[in-house]
Amino acid sequence: MSDYVDLGFARLDTDRAARTGDPEVVFGQGKTPQQVVDLLRVLAEQDTGRPALATRLSDEARQLVREQLPDAVVDDTARCAVLGALPEALGTVCVVSAGTSDQAVAAEAALVARVHGAGVEEVRDVGVAGLHRILSVRDQLDAADCLIVVAGMEGALPSVVGGLTGVPVVAVPTSVGYGASFGGLSALLGMLNSCAPGVVVCNIDNGYGAGVFAARVARRTSQR
Amino acid sequence: MSDYVDLGFARLDTDRAARTGDPEVVFGQGKTPQQVVDLLRVLAEQDTGRPALATRLSDEARQLVREQLPDAVVDDTARCAVLGALPEALGTVCVVSAGTSDQAVAAEAALVARVHGAGVEEVRDVGVAGLHRILSVRDQLDAADCLIVVAGMEGALPSVVGGLTGVPVVAVPTSVGYGASFGGLSALLGMLNSCAPGVVVCNIDNGYGAGVFAARVARRTSQR
Amino acid sequence: MSDYVDLGFARLDTDRAARTGDPEVVFGQGKTPQQVVDLLRVLAEQDTGRPALATRLSDEARQLVREQLPDAVVDDTARCAVLGALPEALGTVCVVSAGTSDQAVAAEAALVARVHGAGVEEVRDVGVAGLHRILSVRDQLDAADCLIVVAGMEGALPSVVGGLTGVPVVAVPTSVGYGASFGGLSALLGMLNSCAPGVVVCNIDNGYGAGVFAARVARRTSQR
Amino acid sequence: MSDYVDLGFARLDTDRAARTGDPEVVFGQGKTPQQVVDLLRVLAEQDTGRPALATRLSDEARQLVREQLPDAVVDDTARCAVLGALPEALGTVCVVSAGTSDQAVAAEAALVARVHGAGVEEVRDVGVAGLHRILSVRDQLDAADCLIVVAGMEGALPSVVGGLTGVPVVAVPTSVGYGASFGGLSALLGMLNSCAPGVVVCNIDNGYGAGVFAARVARRTSQR
Amino acid sequence: MSDYVDLGFARLDTDRAARTGDPEVVFGQGKTPQQVVDLLRVLAEQDTGRPALATRLSDEARQLVREQLPDAVVDDTARCAVLGALPEALGTVCVVSAGTSDQAVAAEAALVARVHGAGVEEVRDVGVAGLHRILSVRDQLDAADCLIVVAGMEGALPSVVGGLTGVPVVAVPTSVGYGASFGGLSALLGMLNSCAPGVVVCNIDNGYGAGVFAARVARRTSQR
Amino acid sequence: MSDYVDLGFARLDTDRAARTGDPEVVFGQGKTPQQVVDLLRVLAEQDTGRPALATRLSDEARQLVREQLPDAVVDDTARCAVLGALPEALGTVCVVSAGTSDQAVAAEAALVARVHGAGVEEVRDVGVAGLHRILSVRDQLDAADCLIVVAGMEGALPSVVGGLTGVPVVAVPTSVGYGASFGGLSALLGMLNSCAPGVVVCNIDNGYGAGVFAARVARRTSQR
Amino acid sequence: MSDYVDLGFARLDTDRAARTGDPEVVFGQGKTPQQVVDLLRVLAEQDTGRPALATRLSDEARQLVREQLPDAVVDDTARCAVLGALPEALGTVCVVSAGTSDQAVAAEAALVARVHGAGVEEVRDVGVAGLHRILSVRDQLDAADCLIVVAGMEGALPSVVGGLTGVPVVAVPTSVGYGASFGGLSALLGMLNSCAPGVVVCNIDNGYGAGVFAARVARRTSQR
Amino acid sequence: MSDYVDLGFARLDTDRAARTGDPEVVFGQGKTPQQVVDLLRVLAEQDTGRPALATRLSDEARQLVREQLPDAVVDDTARCAVLGALPEALGTVCVVSAGTSDQAVAAEAALVARVHGAGVEEVRDVGVAGLHRILSVRDQLDAADCLIVVAGMEGALPSVVGGLTGVPVVAVPTSVGYGASFGGLSALLGMLNSCAPGVVVCNIDNGYGAGVFAARVARRTSQR
Repeated sequence: MSDYVDLGFARLDTDRAARTGDPEVVFGQGKTPQQVVDLLRVLAEQDTGRPALATRLSDEARQLVREQLPDAVVDDTARCAVLGALPEALGTVCVVSAGTSDQAVAAEAALVARVHGAGVEEVRDVGVAGLHRILSVRDQLDAADCLIVVAGMEGALPSVVGGLTGVPVVAVPTSVGYGASFGGLSALLGMLNSCAPGVVVCNIDNGYGAGVFAARVARRTSQR
Repeated sequence: MSDYVDLGFARLDTDRAARTGDPEVVFGQGKTPQQVVDLLRVLAEQDTGRPALATRLSDEARQLVREQLPDAVVDDTARCAVLGALPEALGTVCVVSAGTSDQAVAAEAALVARVHGAGVEEVRDVGVAGLHRILSVRDQLDAADCLIVVAGMEGALPSVVGGLTGVPVVAVPTSVGYGASFGGLSALLGMLNSCAPGVVVCNIDNGYGAGVFAARVARRTSQR
Repeated sequence: MSDYVDLGFARLDTDRAARTGDPEVVFGQGKTPQQVVDLLRVLAEQDTGRPALATRLSDEARQLVREQLPDAVVDDTARCAVLGALPEALGTVCVVSAGTSDQAVAAEAALVARVHGAGVEEVRDVGVAGLHRILSVRDQLDAADCLIVVAGMEGALPSVVGGLTGVPVVAVPTSVGYGASFGGLSALLGMLNSCAPGVVVCNIDNGYGAGVFAARVARRTSQR
Repeated sequence: MSDYVDLGFARLDTDRAARTGDPEVVFGQGKTPQQVVDLLRVLAEQDTGRPALATRLSDEARQLVREQLPDAVVDDTARCAVLGALPEALGTVCVVSAGTSDQAVAAEAALVARVHGAGVEEVRDVGVAGLHRILSVRDQLDAADCLIVVAGMEGALPSVVGGLTGVPVVAVPTSVGYGASFGGLSALLGMLNSCAPGVVVCNIDNGYGAGVFAARVARRTSQR
Repeated sequence: MSDYVDLGFARLDTDRAARTGDPEVVFGQGKTPQQVVDLLRVLAEQDTGRPALATRLSDEARQLVREQLPDAVVDDTARCAVLGALPEALGTVCVVSAGTSDQAVAAEAALVARVHGAGVEEVRDVGVAGLHRILSVRDQLDAADCLIVVAGMEGALPSVVGGLTGVPVVAVPTSVGYGASFGGLSALLGMLNSCAPGVVVCNIDNGYGAGVFAARVARRTSQR
Repeated sequence: MSDYVDLGFARLDTDRAARTGDPEVVFGQGKTPQQVVDLLRVLAEQDTGRPALATRLSDEARQLVREQLPDAVVDDTARCAVLGALPEALGTVCVVSAGTSDQAVAAEAALVARVHGAGVEEVRDVGVAGLHRILSVRDQLDAADCLIVVAGMEGALPSVVGGLTGVPVVAVPTSVGYGASFGGLSALLGMLNSCAPGVVVCNIDNGYGAGVFAARVARRTSQR
Repeated sequence: MSDYVDLGFARLDTDRAARTGDPEVVFGQGKTPQQVVDLLRVLAEQDTGRPALATRLSDEARQLVREQLPDAVVDDTARCAVLGALPEALGTVCVVSAGTSDQAVAAEAALVARVHGAGVEEVRDVGVAGLHRILSVRDQLDAADCLIVVAGMEGALPSVVGGLTGVPVVAVPTSVGYGASFGGLSALLGMLNSCAPGVVVCNIDNGYGAGVFAARVARRTSQR
Repeated sequence: MSDYVDLGFARLDTDRAARTGDPEVVFGQGKTPQQVVDLLRVLAEQDTGRPALATRLSDEARQLVREQLPDAVVDDTARCAVLGALPEALGTVCVVSAGTSDQAVAAEAALVARVHGAGVEEVRDVGVAGLHRILSVRDQLDAADCLIVVAGMEGALPSVVGGLTGVPVVAVPTSVGYGASFGGLSALLGMLNSCAPGVVVCNIDNGYGAGVFAARVARRTSQR
């Protein structure tokens, strides 16, 4: 029996769940709305017992998903769609974001972590220029199994959070900024050079990758 | 009571262990051998019940540590020194490295993870140009609580490992290479753009950061 | 007798075929649809016994070619047009691509190799995050005279393919990705730093150059 | 009467003090120890009523200054020498630094500010990974007329300081770090993209420029 | 009593004025016109005795502000809006700009400085290629408490101004230019490497940051 | 039976020859002279019927090879050593270099191609600033099965060669140059953007990779 | 009497001609069509005896110039407009360009050189991939007083031309290319690193600057 | 008769003088002292009626030239040696430099211009931070046939000079600076983006190229 499904324009790797414990995901960027819908439908028909997830969906793609897959849940902030029942929530991922402009990436990270089997909390708008805001949620940070910290511009928030708690921190730089932010490069470099130990980094705007990683950590913490 | 010790040239943050669960660490780069020894000695005298760790030690600094702190354990490959009893090993961090030139960074990561309370295994010389080598240790990868994957040049190994297993992968690019590797930039970018989900990245040659992060994940997995 | 034709806006180098054994090619980017059509027509009228090829054609240019040059073959995935009979296929170029988003570049490489006189095979959607897919086509790789490997993001596929076979590998980075992929720079650097020997690299998205080079290798292999 | 002195290898601009209110300064990098001494001596002989300052002095240059200009004050941490009486101290510049490795740049900034006529205070080793340290000196920050904040690695400290106080902040990135710090580029970009308003930036390791600027601000504040 | 107002999509930090002496500011880039209007209105309702400022407003946002907040003053060159009475003008900030293309950034800097409590003067179109223009306003430069110098392309104007006067210079690089200006990088690097002492730098096109900083300097000068 | 030999500090992949048709190679950079000697000796003892090759050898390593492995052939220009009989020469690789400073890389490429089974010719000092030199060897270029073109600075030679002949061109940028050559980046970019079709590129200074690739092409041409 | 005219949005430097011997020029990029027309009109009214030139004009600006300034000469390839009689042509500037895509920059350079008082010749489509084309115009190159060489992609043409003749060469990189051409960076670096002596470089796409410089050289040659 | 001399390690292009009117030059960087001496000697023996020039000579190479070629003139500031009588001086090149640290490059430019047949004047230490210095030599600038302007750091001097005079300006960025000067990149970009027309640019520290170019311009001016 084959471990992938050939759609002509894509070869779906349905064996991935068995290998990694995660659902297959449709990366929507660069795909037509119809390709997104077709891929989601085929994945859902595989009957893997896990939801199918589509990320980076354009307005048009999300609209077509709503029309052709009425059972799908569409999240406009996260620009994602989910088809199928969510798994049990094991452990807690807390998604911390610096500014309102970082919400899209934070929302993607949160949704992806939930779809990959973790419970999720969100703390918003706690940038380093107003320290009292992040200091006031310190207990919530300590209670999580894994933190995702999302920030653009200088990307300093993960360093501050990493100094406040011993919970593992996954930092996500965003492309929020202008001029010498160079599309998120400034935040990326800032996070890679964090003076706080225990901070690891994802690609710019990669809420998806942070969500997958953090959910794996949180699930394992709770399964033992 | 103060939460730091003032040495004149440095203010030691002895409160960090309580905050993060990790020992204080002396970053040896840019410090004189005598400063390293003095800092290690003061930290050990704080009686925190945890070992003191010094990283990035020059040959001269390691020599002086051996002379003045005979109880310290010095690791020449990792270029580190440890003073004090190691903590109990909770969970397993597996450190995977691509080539012989990556050994210094891999050894630092392994030692740091052990000092921060995790059990450690090492898998060496399994670069992507000979896939059978990494395929033959697949069970060992699946059994770990967290993986550290160390590679230079194109930095492709984390993508391959991330496709083989669902264990969280912490990728460490090294400055091994020449020409268009640009001091590790090539490996860093490769890992940040990994097509495998669940891969997060540390700074170039930052075995220390990877070790701290992975130990935190492994310890939490085993403590619950 | 002159070795070029002056069209006013371009000086066609019709002597190139004699010098290099390849047909003249119209690089469509930055040219108007009418300029593309005029150049193709003049080249076909030179009666060189070889087809004329136009690459990087916009939707509008391909439409005008279809209207004004009904004998031309237009490939929408490759964004190319060919006018004139294809040459005999000598040897085999195998074009391997990592993801569905890399298809445009892979299709251009495949078409160009065929137009330059090589037989062509294609293997699609065999990214490194699912190694079993590339491992399952190993015999096909070994049977080719030259491989073209197309990948974006971290660009790791050529390293894996280069470790599996002794067939010459021409790697083509694509601009597929986001954030720290920096428009294909990440994949380009990854391929240039490949740890597998026998991997050479083309410009980002340069399926054309890879096709020309690979066809030259494959043709020579078969002509002796 | 000429407004400069020609030494053959340099044309000293002795008119600068009248124009800008600052003493002439010898930039020692790339000059021989003897050139440094000669320039300092000529400047002191101009009898401008202000001290002469030499920066970026090598060990050898500082040694020769000590031997040949016994009246000079040499600061080994700041790698500077001053010849002549210091001006009255007007206003207060507070120099804040993140780590022990940033001391050389912080010391240069402090000395230069003092030589340019401001009073100076220093706060050391208050990196963002231990927020309680910077929070504990908040009153001292508020009392200054201008702040100089020196940090390497991710350069986050100016953002935190800028969020705590309304005093003007001059940020100085240092080349402290490794890997993706790219010689201070990471800290420089972080500071340029600071989310805290009222933060301006100097060149990497440019304690001198920060000291001149901050002294001008502090002096003006106190002169009116 | 809370020190922030939660709007659902943003947490307004109304305590900032007390901490820094500045009004809260709405950064308009990436926000919808309605979000800008709502934020301005809430800020104005806080009755802080200071105006509310919104920057980087699109044409649509400025139009909606005009419609829904008729008391607001909208500046189309600066792309800003202000709601509430301006504070008393303390001290003088002089905004100097090199070319007509730099006007938007210069206007933002001037407006922001005024809103933050400083008096403002403007000197336009005094690029270094015609030195007589800047030389003719030298007295005006000397009379200011702080200078903001705005320039694109090679960004040489701050060096020239910094050599003419001892007044503190805040340099703002603009993205004006083409080719190797790389979106303002050339001007940014030029200003960071200025050979004139006492020049500090803001992010590319960051008229806002320059205005805040310069106003803080000018106000302090006049308050004592 | 194992397909690799474990030396403690390295795992030798002796199965590679069967997989790729090439000998195992010791990359000498970063290895001690004794490690180089030990690795060469073990490889030679494997009795594979192929020579063992070591590249990037320091002066010390080459000296130790001469002393401890008297049967080895050491090439000081190429900085390589070979142990064992050379294979039959199949086909012809012609190595073309631009300047005298490019000789080290060209010599490495030539030796590696020969060790990997191809016949080799060399054409030296034919930079583009004196076109008559390259034009005078046009027949020699046309007669080769694969060309390796080595150049630093602007890296223009491959474009010129690629326009003169239809033989496949492997371009190798060198780090020869200064200033804006940025360690070979200029030549690398020039070659990647070559306007001549049929030019592929290796990493900066990577004579080894070019030699392996070109030998594979030349051998295949002659084997059929 | 003032040496500039104040238009409110710009201060025209009408004294420039006396200082530099060149007409004032309107840089059209970023200006509205009406601003362009107004500036041209004012300049023409100054009665300097020299034409007024406007460059980088959008389609809309050129259209408005045609409507409102019927005496102006508009060049659509060069995207320029000239108002007033051309000066006598002194000496010869020869503009050499590599490909059809480089025509816009070459045309701007040619027109600007003519407006600044030089005679102009043009040689088109002589890229390095077909050397016979440039070799066939060698006499024409030798006869010029200054050469402008325009090329994109790898920018090799100035090196080849610089090796053929002793006439001063002004190289202009264009943004023609894709992928690793990085908007003309590749051509720019190639030209800066030219191995041919006597090659100087302008900004990317800066035909204007090349034209001004070359005309100055040609005029001076002929005036003595 | 051959147009080059083969020395084994280099092929001397003795035909270059006839082609370009310039002497052959030995680029000393990367060559052994003995190679430099041998090349100079062979060139001098060709009896071309022109001197032989060697540039970028190490201390050791200059010493060996002095010992073995006593007739050579060695310039330690310019790091050059000349063997043979200087040509008649035609026209005037004026070399303007910003700071004392730029002297090596300025001296190389001046010597090279003289050896290539131009008269040379030098103006030193006229950086933009003290404008009166450059303003005071304005007549000297206007009297030259070609200007070479050498500056490091922000590289603003060519813009100022280009605004003062209509003489052609060849700008040479130097690697003088630190931090964000990035080895001369800042000065290079500043000069490429100069707002003054008629400024062209050489590679970083390329006094040689500037000297050749400027001499060609000055000679031509005087020959007609």
